[in-house]
Amino acid sequence: MSTDVRKIQIYDTTLRDGAQSAGIHFSAEDKKRIARRLASFGMDWIEGGWPGASPTDDHFFELMRGREWTRSKLVAFGSTARPGHAASEDAGLARLIASGADAACIFGKSWDLHVTRGLGIELEDNLELVRESVRWLKQHMAVVMFDAEHFFDGFRANEVYAMQVLDAAAEAGADALILCDTNGGSLPEQVASCVRQVVVRYPQLSIGIHAHNDSEMAVANTIAAVSAGASHVQGTVNGIGERCGNANLISVIPALILKMGLACGIDADGLKRLRRLSVFVNEMANQLPWQHQPYVGQNAFAHKGGIHVSAIRKESRLYEHIDPASVGNVQRVLVSNQAGRSNILAKLKQLELDADIVVDNEAMARVVQSIKEMEAIGYAFEGADASFQLLLRRATGHFKRHFELVRFRVYDEKRGHNDAPESEATVQVRVDGRLQHTAALGIGPVNAMDRALRAALVGAYPGLEQMRLTDFKVRVLSTRDATEAAVRVLIESSDGVRKWNTVGVSTDVLEATYRALNDAIEYKLVLEDQVAREHEAQRLPEVHV
Amino acid sequence: MSTDVRKIQIYDTTLRDGAQSAGIHFSAEDKKRIARRLASFGMDWIEGGWPGASPTDDHFFELMRGREWTRSKLVAFGSTARPGHAASEDAGLARLIASGADAACIFGKSWDLHVTRGLGIELEDNLELVRESVRWLKQHMAVVMFDAEHFFDGFRANEVYAMQVLDAAAEAGADALILCDTNGGSLPEQVASCVRQVVVRYPQLSIGIHAHNDSEMAVANTIAAVSAGASHVQGTVNGIGERCGNANLISVIPALILKMGLACGIDADGLKRLRRLSVFVNEMANQLPWQHQPYVGQNAFAHKGGIHVSAIRKESRLYEHIDPASVGNVQRVLVSNQAGRSNILAKLKQLELDADIVVDNEAMARVVQSIKEMEAIGYAFEGADASFQLLLRRATGHFKRHFELVRFRVYDEKRGHNDAPESEATVQVRVDGRLQHTAALGIGPVNAMDRALRAALVGAYPGLEQMRLTDFKVRVLSTRDATEAAVRVLIESSDGVRKWNTVGVSTDVLEATYRALNDAIEYKLVLEDQVAREHEAQRLPEVHV
Repeated sequence: MSTDVRKIQIYDTTLRDGAQSAGIHFSAEDKKRIARRLASFGMDWIEGGWPGASPTDDHFFELMRGREWTRSKLVAFGSTARPGHAASEDAGLARLIASGADAACIFGKSWDLHVTRGLGIELEDNLELVRESVRWLKQHMAVVMFDAEHFFDGFRANEVYAMQVLDAAAEAGADALILCDTNGGSLPEQVASCVRQVVVRYPQLSIGIHAHNDSEMAVANTIAAVSAGASHVQGTVNGIGERCGNANLISVIPALILKMGLACGIDADGLKRLRRLSVFVNEMANQLPWQHQPYVGQNAFAHKGGIHVSAIRKESRLYEHIDPASVGNVQRVLVSNQAGRSNILAKLKQLELDADIVVDNEAMARVVQSIKEMEAIGYAFEGADASFQLLLRRATGHFKRHFELVRFRVYDEKRGHNDAPESEATVQVRVDGRLQHTAALGIGPVNAMDRALRAALVGAYPGLEQMRLTDFKVRVLSTRDATEAAVRVLIESSDGVRKWNTVGVSTDVLEATYRALNDAIEYKLVLEDQVAREHEAQRLPEVHV
Repeated sequence: MSTDVRKIQIYDTTLRDGAQSAGIHFSAEDKKRIARRLASFGMDWIEGGWPGASPTDDHFFELMRGREWTRSKLVAFGSTARPGHAASEDAGLARLIASGADAACIFGKSWDLHVTRGLGIELEDNLELVRESVRWLKQHMAVVMFDAEHFFDGFRANEVYAMQVLDAAAEAGADALILCDTNGGSLPEQVASCVRQVVVRYPQLSIGIHAHNDSEMAVANTIAAVSAGASHVQGTVNGIGERCGNANLISVIPALILKMGLACGIDADGLKRLRRLSVFVNEMANQLPWQHQPYVGQNAFAHKGGIHVSAIRKESRLYEHIDPASVGNVQRVLVSNQAGRSNILAKLKQLELDADIVVDNEAMARVVQSIKEMEAIGYAFEGADASFQLLLRRATGHFKRHFELVRFRVYDEKRGHNDAPESEATVQVRVDGRLQHTAALGIGPVNAMDRALRAALVGAYPGLEQMRLTDFKVRVLSTRDATEAAVRVLIESSDGVRKWNTVGVSTDVLEATYRALNDAIEYKLVLEDQVAREHEAQRLPEVHV
């Protein structure tokens, strides 16, 4: 831990640079929800967008006029005035001033090649643009920051000119100078050496870093800049952003706090909400979870190799660089055909199965055999804890089936080019020795099947009324011919209190879905049985004492 | 570029540490295919597995006995002898010697805490284990490397002891000392400072780095170690590995060559195969592509923001840190509702549409409107270039429908608990004014629909015979209730020569599939029309001249 007393400013650009990411589309309402979440997490600066660049951004700044959070400051992003336009008459700068944001951040060219080839103007004219743009904004806004675009390339190409650009912004009153590795090509040593020189030159200004991940070094470049004296870091939640993304604040923030001992607007309690912030933004961005994500990913503290697992059971810090709880994460033990018995035992313990399940050598051999057989036909249990628990119960003789499928039929028809399709499913199951035969229409065949199955079971098990499917994923397992190959369906279910995941595999996507649904319902019913037994156990002493 | 003349050794552990990744299951045959590919790419060392740890690894080393590649060396991984066992009688060391590998790499404890708490032995006894294990192996194998587990944590906790462990391995004849950041918690500055001291101490030995990505710094830590004097780097293709993964060789290798000017076993021509190696391992590991992957990802050189795109059209190096072709990648221009007209124009140009498509202002407005409408209901075109090209053709009036769906019906039935389900689809389409009504059985409903549709069309369009669906993905678009939500289906098709991607959205997974199938077939037929027109155009001069 360092004795550095700087407080690092965290500048979030998820809503601006992050929204540039391929495949991400935020509505203005999405952006509002995310902004509120970023503010409650404790970001110092929230860059909301570029007024005038899109109707979404304009609408967002309108929505923000009624914001109730005050500790975080809202920033509007833009560029220096257009060449040939006086700053005072530039439409872009006027929109920043009118945006209602607390601060403006404008980018300008600092690489000589960009000035002459990109903008097509003289080097001196660009200095004037920077100077006049910052000066004009400072007359109308409390805080103005300057993003020196391509600063590190510029510094390598023409160090004197790159510094002159910063001088122009500083003279005009910029509050912060942000050094941008716009194309993400710099290495940490290069970043550190530049930052050191800039920090010495402007001791009174906040010096910032804006890194991109094209060399897979955005987080390291950000940390290198802070080590070299930068006190302002820009990045996005989960590192989303154009091309390979921006510096990932979800990795930068715990490094600053836990590894460098630096202070920022997020304290130890706030840091515990890191994983939830990451999951929230991921859901808003409609991205698949990055399971291997450092600090907050599902696998960040997941252990698979047999040798590690036995050590971890002795002492966690032997194999974990931080305490998972400090960032709101948990340790996980995975199951696989490479895993030894110690993994499976740890898993059994973690699942908190009934104490009466005795896992003797014979039972263990059956568990290992079951896992091997299921994996051989395409099952994978890493993302399907509930199916794995059911497998353990089945293999050890601690499973009583609540119902049995007799048959299902699914029917999906589109009758005309412009008609919506109609889906109907019939399901016949045996429950408590009696046949239930139900049918249901649905919005699509999966929904019809889900409805028909629950209609058949809800009489016997009313608790299924609360259950909902909350996610549904399909993956082809071989690419020989994708429509003939086996598919793996992963389902996430919820009863409003808990969430659980199940898996089904088949060459028929509807049968694979049925299998995952079947496990999802059986798991829910096992939970209900446990609760019922606990009630029973609690009741007995009251009667007898 | 540096004038450093070191040749950096590349040590690939995709097959050992990479195989520990959650969700990855390589068979021995998979490992054999990957090993051959790694060898042809030019890796110096290929760590194949841990003999005795699993039947898969044992089988793999058996398969490797007939290997024909010789430039790359095969390494067997293992540990120091078990405490209390003489090295000469240790079963693990004996398996390394018997493995048929060219070299052994064994790990030993270098963090005092691991020795006393993990192994539960005296510090001096561990030194003896390291010394005797390396010495015994060196009597039987040409090359022996030593992985100092948790070296950086050990160095921070007890610098003297960590160095004594390296001394023990060096005295016993180890050819290389590998410093491992086993839990991935170190920062580049810490790594560099340690490596510098080790390099000075053992000037005659190869010093290596083995980094994990728990702090999102594995690549930066690897590069920092090389800057500090290490000449051997360990990592995996795509950074796969336990928890958050290992150092990603796909990012490390181009940084060494293109950014640091260092030599390794891969030359400039070899580097052009980097992207294909990444894709190959990804397919073997059955992982979704990491679209934002640095250097080789689909989005690594993809440009979305309007301002960038116009600049990129002027000069690529203004916005790209390396030439995409140097790693086998290409520039892409994306379409989105945030994009300006310059993006769409660039896209039109890239698609090489017929020169007779005039994109005037009115046509452009229709294109933008179409994109907005489709995106609003859940379409996304980043992964579906073929659907996007059809959208452009439709919006600009350059699309002639080859067939029209009248109706479809899909029927999927499972008749008994142990019976395989039966799938049947009927499709009625209008082709050249005539109705075609066909039915087909299939392996699952998607396959049945694909077969019925192609049966209806193949008479009019025999070229569809060659077409196959090669990938199929389903994604729920909202998580309110996953079975009622809209789904997006992405399909990859191939005719043996080209591959193309299409997309379909609906609340009904089969209708969404139909839409993606429809586009896939229309795109194929558009390609055929183009080829036919080109033949026609070539024929005319022959007749008239």
